[in-house]
Amino acid sequence: MSELKNDLLLRALRGEEVSRPPVWMMRQAGRYLPDYIKLREKYDFFTRCQTPELATEITLQPIDQVGVDAAIIFSDILVIPQAMGMEVLMEEGKGPLLPNVIRTEADIDALIATDIPARLDYVMKALALTKRELNGRVPLIGFAGAPWTLLCYMVEGKGSKSFDKAKQFCFSNTELAHKLLQKITDATIEYLKAQIEAGADVVQVFDSWSGMLGMADFKAFAQPYLLQISDAVSKHAPVILFPKGSWYALQDLSSSSAAGLGLDWSITPQLARQITENRITLQGNYDPSKLLTTPAQIKKEVKEMIDGFGTKRYIANLGHGILPNVPVDNAKAFVEAVKEYGQ
Amino acid sequence: MSELKNDLLLRALRGEEVSRPPVWMMRQAGRYLPDYIKLREKYDFFTRCQTPELATEITLQPIDQVGVDAAIIFSDILVIPQAMGMEVLMEEGKGPLLPNVIRTEADIDALIATDIPARLDYVMKALALTKRELNGRVPLIGFAGAPWTLLCYMVEGKGSKSFDKAKQFCFSNTELAHKLLQKITDATIEYLKAQIEAGADVVQVFDSWSGMLGMADFKAFAQPYLLQISDAVSKHAPVILFPKGSWYALQDLSSSSAAGLGLDWSITPQLARQITENRITLQGNYDPSKLLTTPAQIKKEVKEMIDGFGTKRYIANLGHGILPNVPVDNAKAFVEAVKEYGQ
Repeated sequence: MSELKNDLLLRALRGEEVSRPPVWMMRQAGRYLPDYIKLREKYDFFTRCQTPELATEITLQPIDQVGVDAAIIFSDILVIPQAMGMEVLMEEGKGPLLPNVIRTEADIDALIATDIPARLDYVMKALALTKRELNGRVPLIGFAGAPWTLLCYMVEGKGSKSFDKAKQFCFSNTELAHKLLQKITDATIEYLKAQIEAGADVVQVFDSWSGMLGMADFKAFAQPYLLQISDAVSKHAPVILFPKGSWYALQDLSSSSAAGLGLDWSITPQLARQITENRITLQGNYDPSKLLTTPAQIKKEVKEMIDGFGTKRYIANLGHGILPNVPVDNAKAFVEAVKEYGQ
Repeated sequence: MSELKNDLLLRALRGEEVSRPPVWMMRQAGRYLPDYIKLREKYDFFTRCQTPELATEITLQPIDQVGVDAAIIFSDILVIPQAMGMEVLMEEGKGPLLPNVIRTEADIDALIATDIPARLDYVMKALALTKRELNGRVPLIGFAGAPWTLLCYMVEGKGSKSFDKAKQFCFSNTELAHKLLQKITDATIEYLKAQIEAGADVVQVFDSWSGMLGMADFKAFAQPYLLQISDAVSKHAPVILFPKGSWYALQDLSSSSAAGLGLDWSITPQLARQITENRITLQGNYDPSKLLTTPAQIKKEVKEMIDGFGTKRYIANLGHGILPNVPVDNAKAFVEAVKEYGQ
């Protein structure tokens, strides 16, 4: 494996001095990129995920075309429920559908928990191929969905404004919910460790729906599993936790084994630093809808954002995934603004 | 007008001693009540809103059937865009659709800003009729959508996960956005004052989408208009502000002219009290999905919630609207738990 030519992301996660913060964008591979849209017209979603050559091509597009400081493997958080034996359908532009949701203990017992890495061999192949193609240009990020967020889909069966079926399941069948969360956690730990072995330099855990939970419920149903994953996986590579919407968890999670903490845009850089007391590298948190303005406005605001976070222990990113209708020039302006910072 | 026999809500909003906290539930009129569902099968949404006898009947149902301490008039926040001249379609179970959205200054100039109360005369008639039918049993709450939340629908044209068209409009056309927000604010102030004149004892302003905004943008696009409304309307009746998701605004808003502040379930009672320092009456914040558990569990948790908030300067409520699939017995258990508190 060739040595990394750009190790800003790893340096930031270790809290080392950097010439400027590293920058990448959640969902940077896909959606808004014309070359991705061309592939989408030819291959369906799971073909794109499951064909290492395609996943690699998509993963590399923003490195070449937008100039980000890290690659994140093109995949989906729902590959874990799929590997555990659940049917997952993905209708373009409509979000996921899991026709046979989890209801009973028997449903949980029927989930496969062994050989998860082997069952997701196509992800490992894509990581290895991407690593080779990157040839040390930038680090490679692997990822997984957090157990709570995966439970949401596995119980609700699809996206939802309130995930009340998933929450009802947790609140009414607490023991079963914990059994399911533990089973997902075990699978996820194996999966992330295998991703690191296959070539991921860093992994991120997306708890996209953690903000649906109140503080006490987050501590019951989300936090313990995030921490289990972080504790087990941090031994092998730096872990970034992204509990979207869970502003109340920042203090606790900043004292965890994780190397980085993703932030959504609801919090100011100053307040996030104050709460986390410089114990952890912070990542975020530009409002994705602001990428719909102009390059000049984006550059001005990104500068203010970095002023707020400071350049150390900081990874410039969005506060959530990039929107499909962002002009590529605006995405580029975001990246350029970070690269120009301090010059 | 007969004197109020149950003035717990008003006493709580004034910070006076109460025997127990008052209780009501957002969206208590409608959705989950079998008698409402029967009416829904006979009359479409706007017929239900615009026929004072129907609106009154629906408003009274939870008073008689669930035993809440306040009535809230059955209506919709989108009656203001409608009164301002926009077409609003409401497909049952699908959410609103505004086919001709706001894009330009001419669109804003074309909005009607005069005679709003007269144009919403059916709401005033429903309030007057409900007030008469209540005969002093409990106070009557009027309401409106907050300017930011109404802008979301008027620009986006429908519900959205991220309201990025509405946000793009604000971030790219800031001056126009403020012109629109001010026009909505002026209409809303007239509307709420007329509601009070027609019989509302209290009014609530729903900023359902304020949590989509980061702190700085909330202060730019939401807070000034909430405060204008509160300052103008508070002279006539107590105002409750409900900026859902905007935990970061609690300190500022607790020092405003509003009498009450609605909370979603993301915050603990203890932290909310700490931030607002007992300057304002707090309302909320039971997770609506917890009404899908059991009466016994609900009663236990409601007791803990009141323990957390204390009985003074507190209105027991949900953290958001009641869900359509809540069993009536569970809604009753919520109300009973508050009534039994301290006995």
